[in-house]
Amino acid sequence: MNFVPGEKYKAFEPINLPDRQWPSKVIEKAPIWCSVDLRDGNQALIEPMGHERKLRMFRHLVSLGFKEIEVGFPSASQTDFDFVRYLIDNNEIPDGVKIQVLTQSREELIRRTFEAVQGAKEAIVHLYNSTSTLQRRVVFDMDREGIKQIAIEGAKLVRQLADEMPETKIQMEYSPESFTQTELDYACEVCGAVMDIWKPTPDNKIIINLPATVEVATPNIYADQIEWMHRNLPNRDCIILSLHPHNDRGTGVAAAEFGIMAGADRVEGTLFGNGERTGNVDVVNIAMNMYTQGVNPELDFSNINEVVRTVEYCNQLPVHPRHPYGGELVFTAFSGSHQDAIKKGFAALKQANAELWEIPYLPIDPQDLGRSYDAVIRVNSQSGKGGVAYLLQEDYGIELPRMLQVEFSKVIQKITDETGKELSSSFIYDVFTEEYLEAKGDLSFVNHQTTVDTHASERRVLSANVVYKGEEKTVEGSGTGPIDAYMSALKSSIGVDLSVNDYREHTTGFGADAVAVAYVEMRKPDGTPVYGVGRHANIVTASLRAITSAVNRAAN
Amino acid sequence: MNFVPGEKYKAFEPINLPDRQWPSKVIEKAPIWCSVDLRDGNQALIEPMGHERKLRMFRHLVSLGFKEIEVGFPSASQTDFDFVRYLIDNNEIPDGVKIQVLTQSREELIRRTFEAVQGAKEAIVHLYNSTSTLQRRVVFDMDREGIKQIAIEGAKLVRQLADEMPETKIQMEYSPESFTQTELDYACEVCGAVMDIWKPTPDNKIIINLPATVEVATPNIYADQIEWMHRNLPNRDCIILSLHPHNDRGTGVAAAEFGIMAGADRVEGTLFGNGERTGNVDVVNIAMNMYTQGVNPELDFSNINEVVRTVEYCNQLPVHPRHPYGGELVFTAFSGSHQDAIKKGFAALKQANAELWEIPYLPIDPQDLGRSYDAVIRVNSQSGKGGVAYLLQEDYGIELPRMLQVEFSKVIQKITDETGKELSSSFIYDVFTEEYLEAKGDLSFVNHQTTVDTHASERRVLSANVVYKGEEKTVEGSGTGPIDAYMSALKSSIGVDLSVNDYREHTTGFGADAVAVAYVEMRKPDGTPVYGVGRHANIVTASLRAITSAVNRAAN
Repeated sequence: MNFVPGEKYKAFEPINLPDRQWPSKVIEKAPIWCSVDLRDGNQALIEPMGHERKLRMFRHLVSLGFKEIEVGFPSASQTDFDFVRYLIDNNEIPDGVKIQVLTQSREELIRRTFEAVQGAKEAIVHLYNSTSTLQRRVVFDMDREGIKQIAIEGAKLVRQLADEMPETKIQMEYSPESFTQTELDYACEVCGAVMDIWKPTPDNKIIINLPATVEVATPNIYADQIEWMHRNLPNRDCIILSLHPHNDRGTGVAAAEFGIMAGADRVEGTLFGNGERTGNVDVVNIAMNMYTQGVNPELDFSNINEVVRTVEYCNQLPVHPRHPYGGELVFTAFSGSHQDAIKKGFAALKQANAELWEIPYLPIDPQDLGRSYDAVIRVNSQSGKGGVAYLLQEDYGIELPRMLQVEFSKVIQKITDETGKELSSSFIYDVFTEEYLEAKGDLSFVNHQTTVDTHASERRVLSANVVYKGEEKTVEGSGTGPIDAYMSALKSSIGVDLSVNDYREHTTGFGADAVAVAYVEMRKPDGTPVYGVGRHANIVTASLRAITSAVNRAAN
Repeated sequence: MNFVPGEKYKAFEPINLPDRQWPSKVIEKAPIWCSVDLRDGNQALIEPMGHERKLRMFRHLVSLGFKEIEVGFPSASQTDFDFVRYLIDNNEIPDGVKIQVLTQSREELIRRTFEAVQGAKEAIVHLYNSTSTLQRRVVFDMDREGIKQIAIEGAKLVRQLADEMPETKIQMEYSPESFTQTELDYACEVCGAVMDIWKPTPDNKIIINLPATVEVATPNIYADQIEWMHRNLPNRDCIILSLHPHNDRGTGVAAAEFGIMAGADRVEGTLFGNGERTGNVDVVNIAMNMYTQGVNPELDFSNINEVVRTVEYCNQLPVHPRHPYGGELVFTAFSGSHQDAIKKGFAALKQANAELWEIPYLPIDPQDLGRSYDAVIRVNSQSGKGGVAYLLQEDYGIELPRMLQVEFSKVIQKITDETGKELSSSFIYDVFTEEYLEAKGDLSFVNHQTTVDTHASERRVLSANVVYKGEEKTVEGSGTGPIDAYMSALKSSIGVDLSVNDYREHTTGFGADAVAVAYVEMRKPDGTPVYGVGRHANIVTASLRAITSAVNRAAN
């Protein structure tokens, strides 16, 4: 095997801290949380959030209990600037919540940043410059003194502009960016120089934030670095010591937990760990880890599905099915022996009538997160929305559109709740057939014929034989295609008042056996959606059947 | 806020190990790797792997360099039993690779397990029973002595059956399942009792595997537990000490790394962390973490995309775009300052002509994993397959089927490679239009008319006006629907020899502006796929245009 690192990589130099204390510490209270979803998270998106998605994220973060929210990098992005102004000008920031804005240590950027927060009650101005040996050398071509001067100049201007804006309570934050790749004594020296200018007191603390901009070592080393800083920073009682871990080595959560054990007071991260490259540290994960140890997380994840939906909507990135606490599969036991143990655990818990949660294979009660036991003990493919859709696809070639999955899963859920039974693939298909493919009602479709519209050759006239309220009828309409024409025929002949909102169709099977399945989403005049599905070898017949199904379902 | 754990949860009791050594240790060599993808991973899938997916996974694991592969739980599953037999009977197991089979400590299961491995050159028989306080109480209703007897009885039978099968070199493995929730002294006692029966020697070691069946504490505590066992197990030189972490708290990778630092020799895990609930520990992640520290990982991930594809195919679960090393987005820098620093880093590296990899924001050279620098510095929405598909959907309502995404992304990649430029959304749409919607060639579609087939009322006759090689023509065919009929018309009139393999269609826009987009995947007689796309307000016209596009593209 030739996959060897050779001389291309070397081990991170361990920290000499033989009397480290953190490995014997236990986390006893939640840190101050700061969400960076709207900044570090947003800047790493394929398509960054627009105003509407930003606002939805901001309101959601507030509702979860975040008191500090980094809302952007206003001097680098007009969208960010406008969003910060919007929040302030429209009173979107509740009392007790601080917005935070990031700026590099450059005069014009700092000035622009202060313009962004003007008029806010409180704000955190977060100043940074990169201090690592590598960045000093290859990016800035400056020595230690030069890089420290960048921090000092920026700190002076921040101090001055904050003093000139007394109506806004400015808290100051400084980050030696790429801290984990900076010599500890030098990081301490730069932070000290900034503190000399900002002059914090125990009643008026500043934030010193120590980012693992890139995670480059095992998390015990980050903990050693934090403990070293915690012991060596001057005037520690005037500092809120903050962590900002990334996840390049998949150990960001551990790094944050150890950082807290090593003395940190505050954590910057994102919901489900969105952020540059492999992401920022996942705040949901850390907070819920505390919760399972009896520690109040000071954030509310009692409706985790809503958090997942919001994050997926705003970031347009999925939460993985195995993501701790939020993933679709994490409260599902597939193995028989696990299911049996869980069942016995529930029985024992009920009998003991004890408050303490003790169930094998379930470190947390899914109900605490607004999720259900049902998903836990129901057997494999039959469970959940994904499972139902998967079975229909695998066994019957039916690819349910997402909205229909949601609707149909409720139909199935109702049956399983009533019967408490596992459902087979064929039973699910039967229910699907009855509900959508053979939706009974006043209207039945028999067959159709299309001709070119003699008044407009691009249009078609469709004539369909239907049975309506027991009576055979021929209905006729014109439109750009058969769907449009059939809708027009149904409207004029029997007064159907629906509009087609979405339509999709696919084949199942191959060659001579190929059958098309058509899905229509119709809307009632009041906007309520109604779905219909049709199957036929002829794609037109399939779609007309789908419409017929939706018309019958709308009338029920 | 009312989201507080109250008395429902309590903190995990720390291990009293003030002289712990692991926090000062550094990982200097790879552990023995054991893949449990085909067992722990497989049993947690919505739809477990069938024979073909299992075989593909097994061969892939071998090709990556795994020497120990848990291939199933043959006594619990006939599919697993048959698969183990298949591997042995068809000489699928290369020399030097050991298959491993799991069994509970029950007589009939152990006997069946030995039947499964009969005839193999080497095999690891992995015996387990659950030892935690909780499982003893609620699942087994037995005291410490009773549970120990289960292990002893099983160990005796394993010893006996192994002795009766001298042609197979059996290595024995024992797991006190739910180890992390078992009292350490008791876990040690049970392992010791099993060792008394198996009588390992330094030349004939057994495996003692200590699973975090459920991850219930911070990973430093798992490390303390492992170090305690490492120090206290009898005859340590006769043992291969093995880890089996799960990821319920999102810290499985850290737990494995610390376990190795604490004295373990072996790690059981899966590719990208598939497994029960939140998953088993991710072997790719741990191995690559070692690689970036200059340690030979003893596994070959030089083609990480192939690993991702195989795992996604076999598990039918996605690898998250931010997954360390394998995720689609992890070598992409979106932020201007990051891009700038990376660019300067590359320039400095080139100038220095040094072997050591030192690039800001990139802890590893993407090329080592078979990925490219291009993805790193190309800007946001325009990059990659996902980006292209996203833009077409967002800006033009085009929902490319997955296979077409792959094909089209190659077209785009070629252009960006040639021009080195960022591509705008409208440019991408123009390329798409030219390539698929207006695919030029001998055939143009003009219009069509369908009538009921007078010989069979369920069939249709389609008559289409086309231009073929510059000449106007009317072609006619019959079929179950318009697609079938058009294919038949093209075959009889101009000799088109393609078959329709897949077809899908959806609307874009609403109401009167609604336009259907149809995608067809055709196959040439030799099986090569060819795609075509068509757009029209009439769903039939859209699909006939899609076929026309594919016919022209097939001829080019």
